[in-house]
Amino acid sequence: MTEDDLIARFFAPIAGPAALGLKDDTALYAPPAGHELVLTVDAVVAGVHFFADDPPEAIARKALRVNISDLAAKGSEPQGFLLTLALPSAYSADWLGRFASALGEDAKTYRCPLMGGDTVSTPGPLMISITVLGSVPAGAMVKRTGAEAGDILFVTGTIGDAALGLFVHGKSPPSWATQLSGPHREFLISRYLEPQPRLALAPIVRACANGAMDISDGLVGDATKMMRASGFAARVDLARVPFSDATKAVISQPEVFESAITGGDDYEILCAVPPSHAMVFEQLALKEGVAVTRIGEVIDGVAGSVTFIGVDGKPRTFARGSYSHF
Amino acid sequence: MTEDDLIARFFAPIAGPAALGLKDDTALYAPPAGHELVLTVDAVVAGVHFFADDPPEAIARKALRVNISDLAAKGSEPQGFLLTLALPSAYSADWLGRFASALGEDAKTYRCPLMGGDTVSTPGPLMISITVLGSVPAGAMVKRTGAEAGDILFVTGTIGDAALGLFVHGKSPPSWATQLSGPHREFLISRYLEPQPRLALAPIVRACANGAMDISDGLVGDATKMMRASGFAARVDLARVPFSDATKAVISQPEVFESAITGGDDYEILCAVPPSHAMVFEQLALKEGVAVTRIGEVIDGVAGSVTFIGVDGKPRTFARGSYSHF
Repeated sequence: MTEDDLIARFFAPIAGPAALGLKDDTALYAPPAGHELVLTVDAVVAGVHFFADDPPEAIARKALRVNISDLAAKGSEPQGFLLTLALPSAYSADWLGRFASALGEDAKTYRCPLMGGDTVSTPGPLMISITVLGSVPAGAMVKRTGAEAGDILFVTGTIGDAALGLFVHGKSPPSWATQLSGPHREFLISRYLEPQPRLALAPIVRACANGAMDISDGLVGDATKMMRASGFAARVDLARVPFSDATKAVISQPEVFESAITGGDDYEILCAVPPSHAMVFEQLALKEGVAVTRIGEVIDGVAGSVTFIGVDGKPRTFARGSYSHF
Repeated sequence: MTEDDLIARFFAPIAGPAALGLKDDTALYAPPAGHELVLTVDAVVAGVHFFADDPPEAIARKALRVNISDLAAKGSEPQGFLLTLALPSAYSADWLGRFASALGEDAKTYRCPLMGGDTVSTPGPLMISITVLGSVPAGAMVKRTGAEAGDILFVTGTIGDAALGLFVHGKSPPSWATQLSGPHREFLISRYLEPQPRLALAPIVRACANGAMDISDGLVGDATKMMRASGFAARVDLARVPFSDATKAVISQPEVFESAITGGDDYEILCAVPPSHAMVFEQLALKEGVAVTRIGEVIDGVAGSVTFIGVDGKPRTFARGSYSHF
């Protein structure tokens, strides 16, 4: 199969109009008038961000959704994406077909059509890099820097599932993983494999939040990052952090608790909402079926200094703030 | 060094305003009013598109310039780029510093600032994927599909240098490479390592050409692709194809000639210009200091059927039309 055949067979069917049938050098895209573009790129590498033998559907979904999650946290709607696929020679047409069709389904679900791409061979691991374009009404992007003293800190969904799911899904699961029921194990693994970006919340975040980011490197590290960017301190009440039943079943063990709140891959939204907008934020999120939970507040203090209050009322510290590649 | 340190040290200094200091989840970019966006992504992999021990400056330049070349051929001006860097653990701060500063220089030269990126670790080879955004006045993008019967086919610069440069630069250069003078060898290698995108020609292509593409997979294959996309045939006179002195010194050997016109990595522009605009195209290109050469014409016939006429006046065929990864 030549590169052109591969594109025509697997990717042209999932491409949007900007892609020009994937038959030109470039895509051509007319941005909506009065809007600004929100741009982000995220790459995933086999053996680093996923396991090479994960289902191709899950790999495709994760690669796109980690980017959609960034858009959602900025209050932005997707416009389309460009795909880089670095493919080892071992990948079959069957694998590619499953990968591309899952990607195409997600592109429909999130209204984020394929605009262009590049497929290259690699002697190394499978790698997927996706650039997404989103749009916001001019001036309306919700930045990391916007949080203000007095704002209430919210998170969406539940925290820690994916970080625990990675342990459960790994080649040598820790002993606590064996204490989980089958359905709990599956739930945590699915949260690791297939993030659920909170795109339904994008317009609500835009309407209500002063500052926001998606939680990809752990609640502890990302809350610290957001406060550093905003120039404020914060207090987070660990007793209020929302956990799933599966995570609750094991976080009485301190090292599991620490993994859950520092381990990352949550793809939930952390946002700072002024008290005047907090109830409306909760009501609108409820309408969209997305759980949002008050976990703390933004306060004056040293920029980036976040105090995590334990269930005993005492401040907690963590060995490892957030995930870093280097 | 954490990922954040790495970004702050090497990439924040070369970032443009859309990057928001590389401190948010996304970039924020306001497209120019009345313009459309031209988008493309190209990836390069160590051991496939460049040698791992090539100078970091050359790797950075090639990674960005192959994308700028696509914009130029579409008549588009760069607006900015997003970078994915998949980095093996062996890469040093010195290497990264050299890579980033060459990338920053090119970003200035081509007025294409860094807008965002993702840096990930990889157990595999170094890989760089770059997404560029360009702009064109609405409706003005020059497509592959636009060539019409009667148009004159032009190429910029010289053809085949980079394809031969790859042989010369390789670990076991063929015997013809030893016949080259030192300066010719260096010239061919530099054409392989550091493409010179014809960005100065972008507005001229936009003003004069019906159809265009950049030559990245070899003149033979790309001319065929453009005619297939346009729905026409073409005749190319091989005696008119422009070659550098270095390439001329060795292309009397048939296999070298074939490599030169099928081997790729030229990053020159192939365009179809109506006869009414051909002289003005030549004059404007001359003013910009870019050589353009008439090599043939678009004719009615089977779509994508390109006849290459040899110096003996007879049609030539080639074993291998163009470079393909798969």
